[in-house]
Amino acid sequence: MLAKSGLSTIRMQSKRQALLLSSSNCHGYGLLEFAKQEICNFLSINNVRELIFIPYAQNDFNGYTKKIADVIDPWGFSVKGLHTFPDPANAINSAKAIFIGGGNTFLLLHRLYEKNLVNIIRDKVDDGSLIYMGSSAGTNVATISIHTTNDMPIIYPPTFEAIGIVPFNINPHYIDKVDETHKGETRDQRIGEYMEMSHAKPVLGMHEGCILHVNANQLTLKGISGAVLFQKSEMKTKYDVGADLSFLL
Amino acid sequence: MLAKSGLSTIRMQSKRQALLLSSSNCHGYGLLEFAKQEICNFLSINNVRELIFIPYAQNDFNGYTKKIADVIDPWGFSVKGLHTFPDPANAINSAKAIFIGGGNTFLLLHRLYEKNLVNIIRDKVDDGSLIYMGSSAGTNVATISIHTTNDMPIIYPPTFEAIGIVPFNINPHYIDKVDETHKGETRDQRIGEYMEMSHAKPVLGMHEGCILHVNANQLTLKGISGAVLFQKSEMKTKYDVGADLSFLL
Ligand SMILES: [Ca+2]
Ligand SMILES: [Ca+2]
Repeated sequence: MLAKSGLSTIRMQSKRQALLLSSSNCHGYGLLEFAKQEICNFLSINNVRELIFIPYAQNDFNGYTKKIADVIDPWGFSVKGLHTFPDPANAINSAKAIFIGGGNTFLLLHRLYEKNLVNIIRDKVDDGSLIYMGSSAGTNVATISIHTTNDMPIIYPPTFEAIGIVPFNINPHYIDKVDETHKGETRDQRIGEYMEMSHAKPVLGMHEGCILHVNANQLTLKGISGAVLFQKSEMKTKYDVGADLSFLL
Repeated sequence: MLAKSGLSTIRMQSKRQALLLSSSNCHGYGLLEFAKQEICNFLSINNVRELIFIPYAQNDFNGYTKKIADVIDPWGFSVKGLHTFPDPANAINSAKAIFIGGGNTFLLLHRLYEKNLVNIIRDKVDDGSLIYMGSSAGTNVATISIHTTNDMPIIYPPTFEAIGIVPFNINPHYIDKVDETHKGETRDQRIGEYMEMSHAKPVLGMHEGCILHVNANQLTLKGISGAVLFQKSEMKTKYDVGADLSFLL
């Protein structure tokens, strides 16, 4: 849909402001703790004090929202669950910032389409009137498509195309450890299968602890661990925290 | 589609004959070696000497077919790739037996629908005129749906519903090892997410080396390792090689 219409793609001159986390949990840290400084900076610079949390990737909306609010509220922001508003589309339309949490990417994308939120979020992020934060599945749906999620396809969404804040794919929780005794594909083999497709876009494999900061047409790696970039017919390239990836836009 | 029409589901009185492998590779064995005796028995009992191999889950059709033929031909069977026939549907219609190999489940299902093979295979297996062997992705597509594949969704298939030789789901390469430092979901958590769906069917997690023998309305675990059954609101249950799982049909 995205690719065909062209109309709904984020423009080159986009005013997008997004912070995309590989995961909310990182070994050795409490929930979101590794990302505290980046999240606080990002929200403050964008004058955000209220955040709508979208818990659609999981089923316990209240419990999930409370877990996130318990961490972020003490940092000086106020978090409300999207499910507590009578009309989700209206709520997004009046919101200044959203945070889409992790869980199952298929379930999340299915619900975003079901409630007609994909286009609204894309357009508002594009024109700079909505600040986007995502983690894990919430990062997958911010990209061009969910082709490189690690999640199980527990529900059939109307398309794999997603919000498209960035025009490439992300593999969150990226890991290159190999279990020699298990014969299922390694992560690199799975991403390699995608790269063989004619429709494949570059894939940024973000290690846990890695954060991608999208500032209009600037793309910077932040957080406490780096990423690996897969491109067609090229070896994978490693990028450390601080790397400028704006060439991907 | 399957669930709605009802017409295309395998009947209770099915004459189905299928051998479903969790994987073709098993730690400590050469390709398919762990399954040699079961495969030879299964094909011989069903008077099969010629096997059409379906390499659609991977892209190198010739190379993949050769790898399989190099193993199975010496066992006294003749293997031909489906891609070498001018019309795949015709070839399946005249075939006595097929073997669908592993690779990417989404790519495999996409190609099976593209070439209109799903209904043909289902009907012929149902009436006993086609013997089915599958491994990994080839086992996933033999079940009711691909909701519980481990593969990356590299291409969007027209549905997640599959051939439906058995009315439940399989998770191949099932593993319950947990990496304490990685925060992505464990396999059990992923299957747990599926079990929360209203459309969820029971899921048989087949360890590598496990084989499911489908003999009309008899279901038996074979091979060199067992399986774990996930059912709604129940603890998972372990089954050893030799277990009778016919109650799942
Ligand atoms: Ca997930
Ligand atoms: Ca696979």
